Amino acid sequence: MTTADLSFDFADVHPDTRYKLLTGLVVPRPIAWVVTKSTEGVVNAAPFSLFNVISEDPPLVVFSVDTKPGDRVKDTLVNVHATRAFVVNLVDAATAQAMNNCAIPFPPEEGEPEALGIPLVPGTHGPVPRLAIAPVAMECRQVTTLNFGPRRDLVIGEVLALHTRAGVLDPKTLRTDYDVYQPVGRMGGTMYAHLNDRFSMERESYDEFRARMAKEPA
Amino acid sequence: MTTADLSFDFADVHPDTRYKLLTGLVVPRPIAWVVTKSTEGVVNAAPFSLFNVISEDPPLVVFSVDTKPGDRVKDTLVNVHATRAFVVNLVDAATAQAMNNCAIPFPPEEGEPEALGIPLVPGTHGPVPRLAIAPVAMECRQVTTLNFGPRRDLVIGEVLALHTRAGVLDPKTLRTDYDVYQPVGRMGGTMYAHLNDRFSMERESYDEFRARMAKEPA
Repeated sequence: MTTADLSFDFADVHPDTRYKLLTGLVVPRPIAWVVTKSTEGVVNAAPFSLFNVISEDPPLVVFSVDTKPGDRVKDTLVNVHATRAFVVNLVDAATAQAMNNCAIPFPPEEGEPEALGIPLVPGTHGPVPRLAIAPVAMECRQVTTLNFGPRRDLVIGEVLALHTRAGVLDPKTLRTDYDVYQPVGRMGGTMYAHLNDRFSMERESYDEFRARMAKEPA
Repeated sequence: MTTADLSFDFADVHPDTRYKLLTGLVVPRPIAWVVTKSTEGVVNAAPFSLFNVISEDPPLVVFSVDTKPGDRVKDTLVNVHATRAFVVNLVDAATAQAMNNCAIPFPPEEGEPEALGIPLVPGTHGPVPRLAIAPVAMECRQVTTLNFGPRRDLVIGEVLALHTRAGVLDPKTLRTDYDVYQPVGRMGGTMYAHLNDRFSMERESYDEFRARMAKEPA
């Protein structure tokens, strides 16, 4: 079959199709396994991949919560707005299945960690616990939430504290050891990816680039 | 050597160290290879990995621009604010080196695509061209920019149009073919990753989960 370049005018594309295109193509995405606590004390955990770090000074992360009616992930937003606190746990190969189980739409009164037998560690910088099995956890305080209509809210949070499992960071250089960490990324649909096939690219200075071009013109 | 779990109170950690920790651990990140155009007509291209999709309705992306003094990536922000237009090109294995070359700090009057010999395709939904070699490109209109102090600005943009190279999407199902696409993700430091080691996880319904637990308790 012959295929051609495809172009989409997004004004003519249904939001569900836009979601499929955007999440299928903007990959790989990091996964925030977000733990929150309700005012009744129920500890909730749910995964979000419309997520990233956005700043180091102040240290900020963002994640986008789907608020379409009937979708259970709204618990996360209710809890964040009630307590202004959340913990972003990161995901490795060993915890990927547990993270995926937290996407099961549990009723709000039933906390995923308890239902799934995931042990918790009390927060050091807020009321929300982290997941004991997570390789990395970031305790966050909600700074603000931006609403973008009926389907999406973007939570912006400041990272107050970061915890890593032994071996994930070199304690001297603070470099990440990905062979120990074994992070997992989000692709489209039901797909995920391991990150063991890595490569390094150094960046040249402008002078180095010009010197190279003088020798071997582009 | 014995290692232990590590914890960091971010109030006590220098911003440069926070950057190293956050970008080393929040992985893999998608890469936005952002093209902008100055009011003088210079076409600029620069990579950003503090980037993601955040919404489908409206269709929105965010990327964070480092604005610390002396850093050349500020050109992107100047151009976005002058024209309110930008194009997010995505990166594959074949274009990774060209993307990395666009991180060389060129002077503002010298456009990376021209200096590096990267061909352009005129925009269909705005004044900014896309990179002809990119597997995916999204023409965007700036919605707003959030400033977070002297070092960071978060650009929020609406996706007006999306273009894909032949074969990246199945034209009938609009599913992404990652074996054709060959996307590349950003890790910490100078590291990147290929995404060929993929796996799928289906999500259970709550009833399926309960039925499974009744048979084989956790």
